[in-house]
Amino acid sequence: MKLATLRQGGRDGQLAIVSRDLSHCELVPDIAPTLQAALDSWDRVSPKLAERAASLDSGNPPGDLMPFDPVKCMAPLPRAYHWVDGSAYVNHVELVRKARKAEMPESFWTDPLVYQGGSDDLLGARDEVPFGDEAWGIDLEAEIAVIVDDVAMGTNALDAGEHIKLLALVNDWSLRNLIPGELAKGFGFYQSKPSTSFSPVAVTPDELSTAWRDSKVHLPLVNRINGELFGQPDAGTDMTFNFAQLIAHVTKTRRLRAGAIVGSGTVSNYDRSRGASCLAEKRMLEQIESGTARTQFLKFGDRVTIEMFDAEGRSVFGAIDNRVVRS
Amino acid sequence: MKLATLRQGGRDGQLAIVSRDLSHCELVPDIAPTLQAALDSWDRVSPKLAERAASLDSGNPPGDLMPFDPVKCMAPLPRAYHWVDGSAYVNHVELVRKARKAEMPESFWTDPLVYQGGSDDLLGARDEVPFGDEAWGIDLEAEIAVIVDDVAMGTNALDAGEHIKLLALVNDWSLRNLIPGELAKGFGFYQSKPSTSFSPVAVTPDELSTAWRDSKVHLPLVNRINGELFGQPDAGTDMTFNFAQLIAHVTKTRRLRAGAIVGSGTVSNYDRSRGASCLAEKRMLEQIESGTARTQFLKFGDRVTIEMFDAEGRSVFGAIDNRVVRS
Repeated sequence: MKLATLRQGGRDGQLAIVSRDLSHCELVPDIAPTLQAALDSWDRVSPKLAERAASLDSGNPPGDLMPFDPVKCMAPLPRAYHWVDGSAYVNHVELVRKARKAEMPESFWTDPLVYQGGSDDLLGARDEVPFGDEAWGIDLEAEIAVIVDDVAMGTNALDAGEHIKLLALVNDWSLRNLIPGELAKGFGFYQSKPSTSFSPVAVTPDELSTAWRDSKVHLPLVNRINGELFGQPDAGTDMTFNFAQLIAHVTKTRRLRAGAIVGSGTVSNYDRSRGASCLAEKRMLEQIESGTARTQFLKFGDRVTIEMFDAEGRSVFGAIDNRVVRS
Repeated sequence: MKLATLRQGGRDGQLAIVSRDLSHCELVPDIAPTLQAALDSWDRVSPKLAERAASLDSGNPPGDLMPFDPVKCMAPLPRAYHWVDGSAYVNHVELVRKARKAEMPESFWTDPLVYQGGSDDLLGARDEVPFGDEAWGIDLEAEIAVIVDDVAMGTNALDAGEHIKLLALVNDWSLRNLIPGELAKGFGFYQSKPSTSFSPVAVTPDELSTAWRDSKVHLPLVNRINGELFGQPDAGTDMTFNFAQLIAHVTKTRRLRAGAIVGSGTVSNYDRSRGASCLAEKRMLEQIESGTARTQFLKFGDRVTIEMFDAEGRSVFGAIDNRVVRS
């Protein structure tokens, strides 16, 4: 099933079920007022949501249908209690290092890299995204994220997969020119990773059919800048750590509570013909090839679109389609 | 006023007003079910809470009083949407560097250091705190945190102070032996900063009277290990960045939403007679003085107590009093 959060009610919006073809939706206040409320009691609530979704997709639903409009969507979780983003496409990390002529430690192939993101202000798929200064080096990062239920401390990768309840697309906006100074301080990202955008809907893994296997999404993640195709790397290829392994890593010293979001990091393929999921990667390739990065970062007014299509060409999550604006 | 969250109802507990002397409390479901709900509408809700608190402290309250028992407390926000911790006592950072014979950049005196913490699982003042392995190097970090309402992107330090609605004490548990490997990877803390403990109550700034000035708390923060005094540095001394400056730093590229928690980092004084707020600092001093750190990290069964007393010797926040246990 597909779930969205409509911008009405309070800060957490209202939970809606969305038809598989993304044409219609239905509020479900009688089942759960918000997506977080549904996740808090997922085992009890999700069968009811699934039943309603089946009815919605049957073409003969009993409830009040509305046309589904992504403009009315907040992020599926407009605010979440935990947002940890991995860097599972190690090929991307290797490239970052290569561009600055640094060796990548061998351990990066076996020990996942993650960072903790801010989650009190997650952005909707059609929101304007405000930045203070173009000189900060505004960049997209097209990713996939999973949303889990309660996961115990010390959960291993074999057991972690069953905690994945929903998936969504993510634009993990990055401020490239703030990163070097911030990482040099040694405490990781903060100012350089502002609020993150999410797809209009989050979906249960079964919506991906056989494209969801080995805790990976085996479909291209398509991103466009101002309507022009920029990259479509396959999310199932070159993903060194799958989502189950990422969850096992993050629960080594803590438990995760229902609604925690775990991201894949920028999707990246060795096959350069697939393009990239961020401008930084294109710039690094230019740097390595010619000594100069020619591609510019984003400007105010630019539009960034991220979408994923199934084998039949149907949009799975709807499109992230944000415009970069001056704050 | 003093506010607590009692362990009843759902994952967010139930909001209670606590008497100034910490002897009694009263649930206030008619005003706000949870602390997050109160913070979501603070301007509207807080006058009602203040009125009820005044009545509670008058000795002649109208409602149903209960004895206040910190054992029944969850963290004031058992889960929060944002937890960012500063390192405002730069003296402490300087010492960390000195112990490993590294220079501290001059910019550390003018550009705050912060890290993003996990906030889906904040621990209560009397909870057992589980860790997988003593070899991880279990340490306390006694701190102060503020809780804000909505803060706009680009808020400057002059305006930031008015957004501070509540204060609490924090034990920002740290796993010292996981830190070097994690920081070497370049993305900051994650596994090395597990769930954080909070004091039984959060208080409005006026509860601190004149000890709250310049966006700092001018009182000693007392910590004990297994009942023995370990440190009582003054939180108002040697705090290079006050809370308003920390908030200005963290809102440079993002807004903060109501209920975001901003921490001070380990309280630390140049005056070594005040002791330390973490074992690491004592170990660094030993390392610098004698070449060897003799003090051991915490063991399973150890108790860590953190408390702050006003000028009349009354506990302001109640005591954090956690036992370290094997997970």
